[in-house]
Amino acid sequence: MKHLFILLLCLPLWGLAQQQQANYICPPCGRACDSIIHHAPGVCAHCGMALMPKDTAKPVTYSICFYLYDGTEVLDFAGPMEVFSYAGFKIFTVGKTKAPVTVQGILKVIPDYSIADAPPANYFAIFGGDDGIATNDPEVISWIKKRDATTEGYFSVCTGAFVLGKAGLLDGLTVTTFHNSIQNLQGAVPSAKVLNNVRYVDNGRVITTAGISAGIDGALHLVARLRGEEAALRIAKHMEYDKYVPEQGMQVKR
Amino acid sequence: MKHLFILLLCLPLWGLAQQQQANYICPPCGRACDSIIHHAPGVCAHCGMALMPKDTAKPVTYSICFYLYDGTEVLDFAGPMEVFSYAGFKIFTVGKTKAPVTVQGILKVIPDYSIADAPPANYFAIFGGDDGIATNDPEVISWIKKRDATTEGYFSVCTGAFVLGKAGLLDGLTVTTFHNSIQNLQGAVPSAKVLNNVRYVDNGRVITTAGISAGIDGALHLVARLRGEEAALRIAKHMEYDKYVPEQGMQVKR
Repeated sequence: MKHLFILLLCLPLWGLAQQQQANYICPPCGRACDSIIHHAPGVCAHCGMALMPKDTAKPVTYSICFYLYDGTEVLDFAGPMEVFSYAGFKIFTVGKTKAPVTVQGILKVIPDYSIADAPPANYFAIFGGDDGIATNDPEVISWIKKRDATTEGYFSVCTGAFVLGKAGLLDGLTVTTFHNSIQNLQGAVPSAKVLNNVRYVDNGRVITTAGISAGIDGALHLVARLRGEEAALRIAKHMEYDKYVPEQGMQVKR
Repeated sequence: MKHLFILLLCLPLWGLAQQQQANYICPPCGRACDSIIHHAPGVCAHCGMALMPKDTAKPVTYSICFYLYDGTEVLDFAGPMEVFSYAGFKIFTVGKTKAPVTVQGILKVIPDYSIADAPPANYFAIFGGDDGIATNDPEVISWIKKRDATTEGYFSVCTGAFVLGKAGLLDGLTVTTFHNSIQNLQGAVPSAKVLNNVRYVDNGRVITTAGISAGIDGALHLVARLRGEEAALRIAKHMEYDKYVPEQGMQVKR
């Protein structure tokens, strides 16, 4: 009887302790703070994103391979890299070899992998710029084709679409590319329907975006598809890309 | 008389030849195509920008130093790099040392220079992310101060403003930073007026921008100031950043 009395006395204290021990995490952002457990709601001091109760978080991890070549347009890949990073994607870069790649003629980047040792990824991303370096390289095109069996989806920005086209991945699809290259892509992939004046086109397995900055919108769209529109809008707000408009691209009916 | 007749006969042909020899160049974009002379109007096959008559082009070259540290936000610097590249700026990157810098926890970048050998530049640019790595490094702050005599202007994106603040460059100015860091910057630089809800603030010598993607707008604004609004709008259109709105930032009256 005495023990039951003590137990009843302790119950409210136990409840209070449980409440105080509620755990919060920041939305998966691919950084060190992903592993930090916070014991009160608020904002992550590291990445600045609003904390969420740990139990409601579902950190499914998607991997994405960023193929970079000399002359890749810097914003083409950096915009999506920023978006996918905050969406908790595991991002890695691949060059033809492991030698540094100079993007935009300026930035020297060391690829994580070469085409000889790059692991598979859920998504394969390719970007514009001097895209002929990749499009006209049979080894690179062959490597992309070989990965197809383990690649769930493709994501191209700007003239990166020409690389996917050369690999036969745009045949029969509705797609887009850089505004000055619409006709050229139509010539390169006659069976595709190449649209102008659209930020991105989502065919399900293949997303192509318009030029340079449109990669940001396409990446936010992919995040919306995988994690929900709320997640995409939260990232857009965090990036102060307050101009992101859901559904501004085109979703091809399947 | 016979010679005069031949001369008169040849004049129209000479005029035609002159017309055919008219020279065109692409707007300076910092790439190899800057040196190509075209003999007909149209679009540069390399960078896709509309060609302009060579005589009307005034390719003043500005240099800009991009300081990068581990944890720099990738879009913070890549957006302005894209803009300044098309504006023909000479861009170089600097790390504390020449060791590779990992930006966004993902991208391995080899800096062009270290703080020991970086040349002077017209502009000094600094970006957000794990900015404490630079802000709390006395050697880096001292190096920025030492360059002040040869630096015409400063450009910060996001929490890069904290680095400029630590170097005493924001004292008494109206500035902005990442939306979650407004109060912190006000605390760090009490004499500054830190604004929220503005894409960028231009004090003349110092431009600070809001978070991450706002660096694109701030860079376009600087290009507009140096090369005219038409040049900025041409670059924005080329980048398909059709959402750039001139005067969306704040110009502090001088």
